[in-house]
Amino acid sequence: MSSKTFDDAGVYRLDRHRALVQTVDFFTPIVDDPFSYGQIAAANSLSDIFAMGGRPLTALNIVGFPADLVPPRVVSSILRGGLAKAAEVGCVIIGGHSIRNPEPIYGLAVTGIVDVRRLTTNAKAHPGDLLVLTKPLGTGIATTAIKRGIASRALRKKVVALMSKINTAGAELAELRLVRAATDITGYGLIGHLVSLCRASRVSADIDPAAVPMISQEIGDLIELRCVPEGSRQNLNATTILVDWANTDEARRILLTDAQTSGGLLLCVAEADLENVLRVLRKGDTASAAVIGKIVPRRRRGPLICMTE
Amino acid sequence: MSSKTFDDAGVYRLDRHRALVQTVDFFTPIVDDPFSYGQIAAANSLSDIFAMGGRPLTALNIVGFPADLVPPRVVSSILRGGLAKAAEVGCVIIGGHSIRNPEPIYGLAVTGIVDVRRLTTNAKAHPGDLLVLTKPLGTGIATTAIKRGIASRALRKKVVALMSKINTAGAELAELRLVRAATDITGYGLIGHLVSLCRASRVSADIDPAAVPMISQEIGDLIELRCVPEGSRQNLNATTILVDWANTDEARRILLTDAQTSGGLLLCVAEADLENVLRVLRKGDTASAAVIGKIVPRRRRGPLICMTE
Repeated sequence: MSSKTFDDAGVYRLDRHRALVQTVDFFTPIVDDPFSYGQIAAANSLSDIFAMGGRPLTALNIVGFPADLVPPRVVSSILRGGLAKAAEVGCVIIGGHSIRNPEPIYGLAVTGIVDVRRLTTNAKAHPGDLLVLTKPLGTGIATTAIKRGIASRALRKKVVALMSKINTAGAELAELRLVRAATDITGYGLIGHLVSLCRASRVSADIDPAAVPMISQEIGDLIELRCVPEGSRQNLNATTILVDWANTDEARRILLTDAQTSGGLLLCVAEADLENVLRVLRKGDTASAAVIGKIVPRRRRGPLICMTE
Repeated sequence: MSSKTFDDAGVYRLDRHRALVQTVDFFTPIVDDPFSYGQIAAANSLSDIFAMGGRPLTALNIVGFPADLVPPRVVSSILRGGLAKAAEVGCVIIGGHSIRNPEPIYGLAVTGIVDVRRLTTNAKAHPGDLLVLTKPLGTGIATTAIKRGIASRALRKKVVALMSKINTAGAELAELRLVRAATDITGYGLIGHLVSLCRASRVSADIDPAAVPMISQEIGDLIELRCVPEGSRQNLNATTILVDWANTDEARRILLTDAQTSGGLLLCVAEADLENVLRVLRKGDTASAAVIGKIVPRRRRGPLICMTE
């Protein structure tokens, strides 16, 4: 994460036209199947590069596990999951480091390259831009339900597929110059990452809470059952002075601040480009992409983000 | 580590003249002072890039700690230690990732750049090359003694300074075309890394055990006290069929296989270049660099490495 604008990855200018884009992310298992866990952790790291309009070149494995508890074939499955996702986008894993650790951890340090004229940051959103979200929300709630053993089989399958999907559209749209600014949605939730984008771009935003897609109705039921991760609760508490929630009900507030793993991209798109953007997203199997609000001029006194109907 | 030759870092060709050199390493604390720990972990990662003749450009912090046990100021000291070492060699830390972890871990994922004509690998050693070791051995034994509280103050100070030193000479010597092949000495000990070099270069090696420098005589005393890390014992056991130890005593066998943290470079140098190499090393405050043996033609039947007197 860049210290200046809290972007998804760090950027280092290599020469006149090119910059390196770099990120590192790793976490403890969030699903039972080791191959899926490897896929999700890798997709999550690789997506950071695409979010900035770059293409990943190389990656390094970051691995920790309790050697006495996790058999080698499980570690091997995790690594194969990561390798499969890297290969899917032409990224080469050229090394790594593993340690014994009381808890299993896995992730990638990824290096990508970007044409500096195509670099997408979170700092160039303009008032009037439409906000497009490329994946539905609720992965934090769903993975908590998986851990507690109360998620349906259909939800488990759906959320694993969703988190394993790499946000390649970020680079395609940057190369077509169809995106003004973008961020990917991860641990701080939709609202948290939108706050960073608004601050970096010196703008405010209006969100239509009803327009924000949810993975499935089961997520709503799980929220009713208080199946909410601690990180999401913290995200919601942190929004108090930044967001005018209007009459948004609590369940939807929780959804909008749910900490995502390998979440979608939040794109700022000029109104005239919207149709082209949606065409690219639909071609890329991102059927659930939705317009959820828009960027407005900076409200100097009022809240950074307002809910609208 | 490159999968093909077990080099210190992975290499990715960027264009006609340049390649990226990348490595990742992290470990649990080996000294008490958090700033020193950060310095050592960073020096250890940065040295991998220099070992291959590259210059580090960027790094990402890899951080884990138990939030309830380690106060923020300690974490901050660790990060400042790493930052200081990166700054010393003009490397920019452009991001990172931290997690809650039952044990503290810290290290860097480092990206460097190398002129492909200057790339130093472990695969080009020639029979007749002299083997030059740039740091004395014994950091595994010394850090074990520190953990057990039996290291003298003088040894503690000396070993921290030694492990904090970045092997910048690797790049200087590569730029002067004074090195045929190199590896840095870390977890597999002198003999382990020499075995990899011999295999990658299809050569054998003769080592004069008495010529290998030791941090201080206290290391010998600690070996007598059985103050030897588990990893070093495993290294020694693994050498049985690869090394003819002749009449080398056990204490010296332990030293030569001691797992190093942020160890020195093992350089393969043509005899005619030796004086120039030693001049560069001495200028760079590597006073204890020593010629410890030489590369010989591959012994097809005999042991890969022989001890000589």
